[in-house]
Amino acid sequence: MQPKITLKDLANLAGVSISTVSKALNDSPEIGEKTRVKIKEIAESYNYVPNNIARSLKSKSTKIIGVIIPAILLEFFSKVLYGIEMEATRLGYKIVICLSNESHQKEVESIDTFINGSVDGIILSVAEETQKNKDYSHFYKTLKYNVPMVMFDRVIDEITCDKVTVDDFEGAFKATNFLLEIGCENVVFLNIISNISVGQLREQGYVSAMQKSDKEVKILTPQHYNEIEKELLPVFKNEKVDAILAADEYSAVLAMNVARMNGYDIPKDISIIGFTNGLISEHAIPSLTVVSQHAENIGKQAVSSLVNRLESETSTETIHTVVKTNIVERNSTR
Amino acid sequence: MQPKITLKDLANLAGVSISTVSKALNDSPEIGEKTRVKIKEIAESYNYVPNNIARSLKSKSTKIIGVIIPAILLEFFSKVLYGIEMEATRLGYKIVICLSNESHQKEVESIDTFINGSVDGIILSVAEETQKNKDYSHFYKTLKYNVPMVMFDRVIDEITCDKVTVDDFEGAFKATNFLLEIGCENVVFLNIISNISVGQLREQGYVSAMQKSDKEVKILTPQHYNEIEKELLPVFKNEKVDAILAADEYSAVLAMNVARMNGYDIPKDISIIGFTNGLISEHAIPSLTVVSQHAENIGKQAVSSLVNRLESETSTETIHTVVKTNIVERNSTR
Repeated sequence: MQPKITLKDLANLAGVSISTVSKALNDSPEIGEKTRVKIKEIAESYNYVPNNIARSLKSKSTKIIGVIIPAILLEFFSKVLYGIEMEATRLGYKIVICLSNESHQKEVESIDTFINGSVDGIILSVAEETQKNKDYSHFYKTLKYNVPMVMFDRVIDEITCDKVTVDDFEGAFKATNFLLEIGCENVVFLNIISNISVGQLREQGYVSAMQKSDKEVKILTPQHYNEIEKELLPVFKNEKVDAILAADEYSAVLAMNVARMNGYDIPKDISIIGFTNGLISEHAIPSLTVVSQHAENIGKQAVSSLVNRLESETSTETIHTVVKTNIVERNSTR
Repeated sequence: MQPKITLKDLANLAGVSISTVSKALNDSPEIGEKTRVKIKEIAESYNYVPNNIARSLKSKSTKIIGVIIPAILLEFFSKVLYGIEMEATRLGYKIVICLSNESHQKEVESIDTFINGSVDGIILSVAEETQKNKDYSHFYKTLKYNVPMVMFDRVIDEITCDKVTVDDFEGAFKATNFLLEIGCENVVFLNIISNISVGQLREQGYVSAMQKSDKEVKILTPQHYNEIEKELLPVFKNEKVDAILAADEYSAVLAMNVARMNGYDIPKDISIIGFTNGLISEHAIPSLTVVSQHAENIGKQAVSSLVNRLESETSTETIHTVVKTNIVERNSTR
């Protein structure tokens, strides 16, 4: 490929200084009309591309928000991204996205890419590896460089920045009570995400609701989707079970299939609820009752928090917004 | 927030020229040790962030690939992104992603963000609106600016650049023949994406295979997932049907559910195949036979094409890579 032409190349071609070229291209009155036209002609003929990042540094704003997503294959994050994109557009910002792919190193690199003047602020959900190794130096660096940052869903308590989360504990607590109130007695919690904070909070919400009603707690923690059938079979065969609360929607749909294969009628014999209100819940047969986390809203709220901070003149206390879950009742519960 | 400090600010603070500051920060031997240390101390104390974009312009490479995705909510694109990320990392590149959200205007803006020196090259799949309005001036601009570009999946024939697509026609042709060979006679094509090029190619592949075997063509084109049941019911009730080929995996899973609700046994009475090898196909009950498009491979191939072009010294002819689909046989076909 042909190399890009630089300001310096243009200066050599025009026989003037770099500063003159720069001023001419920016229509500075310091440069005479003739020189300005000449320089612009040369720039045009060599397809010179002004560097908008350097330009924007001058105005101290890029109107770009940097977003870091840990797991692009999870529908939840796709939906949050969709919400971020919609709200950013509405507020006159563009977004650029990096993927950490749950890696600490990639999260660090993405932060470095962003804080070097290319974005006004950062929205991110923390990588699993960072949650484990607890090395937060890149977040402290971001704060030191005065780049505003909003964490969503997976957040770090020790880092002082705006945060947006869902009420995972509350959501599971409410869903469990919902099942108990419609007359279920033996609610099983199916937790495929027991190793991340979100899954643990949901489990605690379930346990709390069950204990409050003096019901026996029964938790299954398969590590992969293909273990769900194996884990559920003994429950269906040997124990009384009339409800399943799953920590994600996908496990809930699989649980429905396994229940049906074992002669259970849904929702007559068993009621099932999942977390996340995705396509799969809406169109499963029967359609799935879910705890909706409003992923799109989380994205919108994150943008709104960030833009508030970017556009306010004074620094204010950081804000932790909790997006409320609610139960979307469909045909998998009686 | 505190505004970012610029080179000019540093120059004022140090009482030297901008050029001296820049040289000192880059350890130029032209600047004396004392001045260098002094300037670096000031820069440090004001949290000055060097602009890596401006720096990289000097070396004429950013090692960053810009990616534009039209529809983040489609699992196919999430998987392509995942492949892009993996391969870019392997080859020592970072990626930044913009979403066009099927909008022509957003695609144009994303291109503008990228071609202004912030990335080495671009990978994109064309927005639906651009496919309709056929305004390709932003793509011509990219070519004019010598920014290498790779189009994948949704490509524009008129634009001369490297391309990566799947053999949609072939894939549907093979899947239809597969159904005929296992003894199915009445294969229905369920096409929920009949309005985009990919859906049309798959339909043509199906039609071609059916006609070659002198079978009657039967195509359903629901416009939304909630129309699938309504469209399929009369077919199940009044016509002979022993196979369904769906243009996506999600419709295929819904079709399985509707078939079962109408007393069909899968795969004894009816065989079902979908396009796309996602989570939902793997874990449906019964598991779904699919035409795998190898979304991850498409992403990897796109990166590999782009990096080849970036790192080759001479310009070569553009290359159109076709990623072959294959049939992943599971339990929804006899």
